[in-house]
Amino acid sequence: MRAVQYRTIGSGPEVVDVPTPEPGPGEVRLRVTAAGLCHSDWFVMDLPEEQYAYGLPLTLGHEGAGVVDALGDGVSGVAVGDAVAVYGPWGCGLCHACARGAENYCPRAAGLGIAPPGLGAPGALAEYLIVDDVRHLVPLGDLDPVASVSLTDAGLTPYHAIVSSLDALPAGSTAVVIGAGGLGHVGIQVLRAITGARVVALDISDEKLDLAREVGAHEVLRSDESAVEAIRSMTGGVGAQAVFDFVGAPPTLEISRRTVALDGVVQIVGIGGGVLPTGFFSTPFGASVRAPYWGTRTEFMEVLDLARTGAVHVEVERYGMDQAVEAYRRLHAGEVRGRAVVVPGE
Amino acid sequence: MRAVQYRTIGSGPEVVDVPTPEPGPGEVRLRVTAAGLCHSDWFVMDLPEEQYAYGLPLTLGHEGAGVVDALGDGVSGVAVGDAVAVYGPWGCGLCHACARGAENYCPRAAGLGIAPPGLGAPGALAEYLIVDDVRHLVPLGDLDPVASVSLTDAGLTPYHAIVSSLDALPAGSTAVVIGAGGLGHVGIQVLRAITGARVVALDISDEKLDLAREVGAHEVLRSDESAVEAIRSMTGGVGAQAVFDFVGAPPTLEISRRTVALDGVVQIVGIGGGVLPTGFFSTPFGASVRAPYWGTRTEFMEVLDLARTGAVHVEVERYGMDQAVEAYRRLHAGEVRGRAVVVPGE
Amino acid sequence: MRAVQYRTIGSGPEVVDVPTPEPGPGEVRLRVTAAGLCHSDWFVMDLPEEQYAYGLPLTLGHEGAGVVDALGDGVSGVAVGDAVAVYGPWGCGLCHACARGAENYCPRAAGLGIAPPGLGAPGALAEYLIVDDVRHLVPLGDLDPVASVSLTDAGLTPYHAIVSSLDALPAGSTAVVIGAGGLGHVGIQVLRAITGARVVALDISDEKLDLAREVGAHEVLRSDESAVEAIRSMTGGVGAQAVFDFVGAPPTLEISRRTVALDGVVQIVGIGGGVLPTGFFSTPFGASVRAPYWGTRTEFMEVLDLARTGAVHVEVERYGMDQAVEAYRRLHAGEVRGRAVVVPGE
Amino acid sequence: MRAVQYRTIGSGPEVVDVPTPEPGPGEVRLRVTAAGLCHSDWFVMDLPEEQYAYGLPLTLGHEGAGVVDALGDGVSGVAVGDAVAVYGPWGCGLCHACARGAENYCPRAAGLGIAPPGLGAPGALAEYLIVDDVRHLVPLGDLDPVASVSLTDAGLTPYHAIVSSLDALPAGSTAVVIGAGGLGHVGIQVLRAITGARVVALDISDEKLDLAREVGAHEVLRSDESAVEAIRSMTGGVGAQAVFDFVGAPPTLEISRRTVALDGVVQIVGIGGGVLPTGFFSTPFGASVRAPYWGTRTEFMEVLDLARTGAVHVEVERYGMDQAVEAYRRLHAGEVRGRAVVVPGE
Repeated sequence: MRAVQYRTIGSGPEVVDVPTPEPGPGEVRLRVTAAGLCHSDWFVMDLPEEQYAYGLPLTLGHEGAGVVDALGDGVSGVAVGDAVAVYGPWGCGLCHACARGAENYCPRAAGLGIAPPGLGAPGALAEYLIVDDVRHLVPLGDLDPVASVSLTDAGLTPYHAIVSSLDALPAGSTAVVIGAGGLGHVGIQVLRAITGARVVALDISDEKLDLAREVGAHEVLRSDESAVEAIRSMTGGVGAQAVFDFVGAPPTLEISRRTVALDGVVQIVGIGGGVLPTGFFSTPFGASVRAPYWGTRTEFMEVLDLARTGAVHVEVERYGMDQAVEAYRRLHAGEVRGRAVVVPGE
Repeated sequence: MRAVQYRTIGSGPEVVDVPTPEPGPGEVRLRVTAAGLCHSDWFVMDLPEEQYAYGLPLTLGHEGAGVVDALGDGVSGVAVGDAVAVYGPWGCGLCHACARGAENYCPRAAGLGIAPPGLGAPGALAEYLIVDDVRHLVPLGDLDPVASVSLTDAGLTPYHAIVSSLDALPAGSTAVVIGAGGLGHVGIQVLRAITGARVVALDISDEKLDLAREVGAHEVLRSDESAVEAIRSMTGGVGAQAVFDFVGAPPTLEISRRTVALDGVVQIVGIGGGVLPTGFFSTPFGASVRAPYWGTRTEFMEVLDLARTGAVHVEVERYGMDQAVEAYRRLHAGEVRGRAVVVPGE
Repeated sequence: MRAVQYRTIGSGPEVVDVPTPEPGPGEVRLRVTAAGLCHSDWFVMDLPEEQYAYGLPLTLGHEGAGVVDALGDGVSGVAVGDAVAVYGPWGCGLCHACARGAENYCPRAAGLGIAPPGLGAPGALAEYLIVDDVRHLVPLGDLDPVASVSLTDAGLTPYHAIVSSLDALPAGSTAVVIGAGGLGHVGIQVLRAITGARVVALDISDEKLDLAREVGAHEVLRSDESAVEAIRSMTGGVGAQAVFDFVGAPPTLEISRRTVALDGVVQIVGIGGGVLPTGFFSTPFGASVRAPYWGTRTEFMEVLDLARTGAVHVEVERYGMDQAVEAYRRLHAGEVRGRAVVVPGE
Repeated sequence: MRAVQYRTIGSGPEVVDVPTPEPGPGEVRLRVTAAGLCHSDWFVMDLPEEQYAYGLPLTLGHEGAGVVDALGDGVSGVAVGDAVAVYGPWGCGLCHACARGAENYCPRAAGLGIAPPGLGAPGALAEYLIVDDVRHLVPLGDLDPVASVSLTDAGLTPYHAIVSSLDALPAGSTAVVIGAGGLGHVGIQVLRAITGARVVALDISDEKLDLAREVGAHEVLRSDESAVEAIRSMTGGVGAQAVFDFVGAPPTLEISRRTVALDGVVQIVGIGGGVLPTGFFSTPFGASVRAPYWGTRTEFMEVLDLARTGAVHVEVERYGMDQAVEAYRRLHAGEVRGRAVVVPGE
């Protein structure tokens, strides 16, 4: 089968032919119907050799949807032909975190050699994908796989960050979204769909601010020094009860720090290389700072349910397998509106 | 000044002349700009003498908005001329419940002789209203008092019931609203504004089902036996994670009981005379049943904030003081669309 | 192997010889080291034929601990020889409830023919037990199986009821435990271990009140009319923020109703045949009433962790397999102190 | 009356004679029965002139208890002779935060010139104290004022930090307390009283580790590099679900950072001059970091309630007014076991 792999440190993705995998006991094979590209793939591919820990060759793609194609021994709960989406942050399934569905925070996964597809295990940018356990599949139902596949990460990650902040976001509070790109533009929609907060979006690109407004931001602002003052002003000096930083670079973290309210929340979602000094004399009293990771199994189900009501969608650009390398280039260059999705069969 | 009072058991409301009150130390006098009528006023007026405990004569009106007109000694925090709305469920201010703003559950109020305006203390259906403490006033800002006054009860009560149920209502869950009248049609809007739940509204009146749909219900159903089956069917047999019964009569409680999901929530908001037998062999495992009362101080602020974003509004019919008795008659007859509001100066 | 079965409607338990079962794909066979007896076994055996839905013959025992003895195909995560306890409320593993570990509220289990061991599936009162999935096993570690087996129900059930009520039980609040038997005496310990609430225990037996005090109740009271007044008095008229009714009969539910505080919680844990009329004019404003069922996977892990710190233990009477019928008789007669446990190998 | 004041930048506290204050409208005068000394007083007195913002002369003491001595106009809810403790983090009383009792996070206080007693307003280290509003008083009942006065800060501050972390601290989780001094030794007791967590205390002083063990720590460790390894080891590599850093200096924050679990919580309570860099590549995924401040009104009531059950006490050294300067010296030198309390009448 054809697959998009990262094969040599520093070389970028390649489309290659590899053997079609067989499902072992308990495993499920999907025929992939859509696979999403993510900035974090580039983060991985840009790592120097001494920091790279994902194995080579690595079949890319941690956002995957497909049709159940073959079942390993002892699998029940899905049937061949079922359309499904893949829950990516695989954990051990047995520890305290996994028992409540928070496999994204499984402390045992790394030690057991368990890694998400596309980030250690073979990923979804291939004609076929092996999923380790039926619990990592959720029925798609009528949802279109191409339109929906990015909900597995670009939907779930902001959803988790927002759900984790709900206590800080009662009706009439203010939520700031920094970065209206692949994740941020979904975050805006999730905030509108599940909270009564006023949503203020920041970006440096006018095009992305337009997208932010289109998907529901109440206010949009240029992401610079003036934004801090503007947010303080529109909140009567109080600041934002929650800030979602989908960039995570030092300048946006500084905006986060200066914008968050007393007892508020900063969720650092973007892997932009920054850290936020937290404590007395840096952050406001009671403000918590946190870098969440992906989301839980129930949150994944919920974000799909939300898409079913039409409340959330992902802007996608669609590519065939042969265009995957070009799609990655465009993503790296910041040219993608929303999310790039590859359809392996095309 | 003129006031609408209940003066004789069994006689209904009357417009009368009474002395204009003076604010004592710590009190605030409002010139009333709007006062809402409520079914619970009729509940009170329909009580037989031996159950009636609100004092006579009783100036009616527990939904009030006004302009600050005079300050008692030692009052700070508001100024003459401020437009405000009145938080009605007055408590002692000092107990555990009041300290967290839940004066609606103050266990000491009754013993201390503290009662809400219009339900013991002189109410808002008068030209002037005495408010016992500045903490019971919230600035209206640009909100129109006539359009907003019913947020003090018809907004706050459903808001409290819904906020109390948020853990049961993640994105994609199902919320049932029984009764799309004065409170129910606001409840639908609140559910849409602060949750990602699918909202199913039930009523026996086609007109109210139209209103339900207009204000955002995803689905509307005739409130009868068939509704139970329909809800089970649209939820794949699971039922509704939360049911808000704004009627509270035996037939609607039976629908609530048969509709709520395992581990779900029934909030009995309407004072329709029924009780719901709760326990094994009656309600589903884990389903909780509760009759909430009004709302907290912070919830009151939040519901006003929500109105400011345009997410919630109350349908109102406007009456002058001379029409107050007629307005009460129409309310009793079920002829009011949304909520009836009296403007004492008209 | 020998097993304790319910074979004929109305006949009570019998010790019989049955074939030793083999684990299928994904299943695990345990050599049972301890199995607990429960009042709900008698509830099941006392059902008339038309209401009995558990299949015949039914191997009893929904509290089980054992040593892993054989693994079906595709099982990983446990090894032969591991000492484990069994999580009993088996669900589908794939729905929203199961994904967060709340298999006790799986809405699909019944439809899929999934039932707990001892309550449909063959139970733990046998030399060997088949567990359907490794996720239903939790390592016992150093915990003694006989002393710990009842944590699987008599520990987990009160723990779940209490954890569900934590928001109502801040430090200094009052929790009432009605019934200091098998579940109640563990509930008292759990309340002491994980809350700062004052614990008031009620029972009709002096011996059980002694046990209640021994395991940590701050106050003990005869479970009669006078208890209502006593609790009102010791709480300054406020009532109890949470009431755990481990009896669930009409008289105890009436005590629950009259004892619970405004905005408090009643958890009906005992299957004593009663229901509690809930709503205006019956229960206090805001008080929620609920019949919880067993507990979640994470709660199960937590209750075992709590036993490891010594904070919770179950009083047990130990029996060999030949004494199982006699043990059931004593349980039925109310003669067991704490919990009766059978060791199948003895 | 006599008072302990800070009068000149850099000069330390002095005992002086000042006029006895009169209560204005809405205010309450207390005859002080106990006043606690705090490290943060030294933090304030050590500030250079350009950073000092508390006014001069400043009557010290933000921990106060007393007997109601005189009431301003319009005060109700307390009576002359009542024994009370003072809630210190005074807010505006009217904003969203204050309405829910979180005056410690009032965003308006500073702008309105509202400051806590001893930190801007005249403090409790005086024979008489003016309290601005009756809502800032909580009845002491039978609690001894000298033994209890430090619950107002040394009790409330850790209680708030711990209550804010409860979701992370289910039964069997691990809580680390760094610094077993005035606040830390109370934090250990609160953790034992309201959670089922295992408590691990760290300090550099053997004497304080002894105190830690005495008040309930399950484990004690020297607060150095080896502690990180020890905690990882006793948690099976998982780390601590919550870390309470009562020191807040760079080395303890580094221990916090390396000790906290995935999705855990670090609460920086000590003002030790450090900040904790938070984000990817510094803190574990999902771990939140926060510097909480004091506590809410309801938490204050709860911590007093907890003291009433005997679950929490503060170790105190008692001094007369004439010894106040010496007591401050000992505090600065780290010679105080627990908390130093001055009884102004002695």
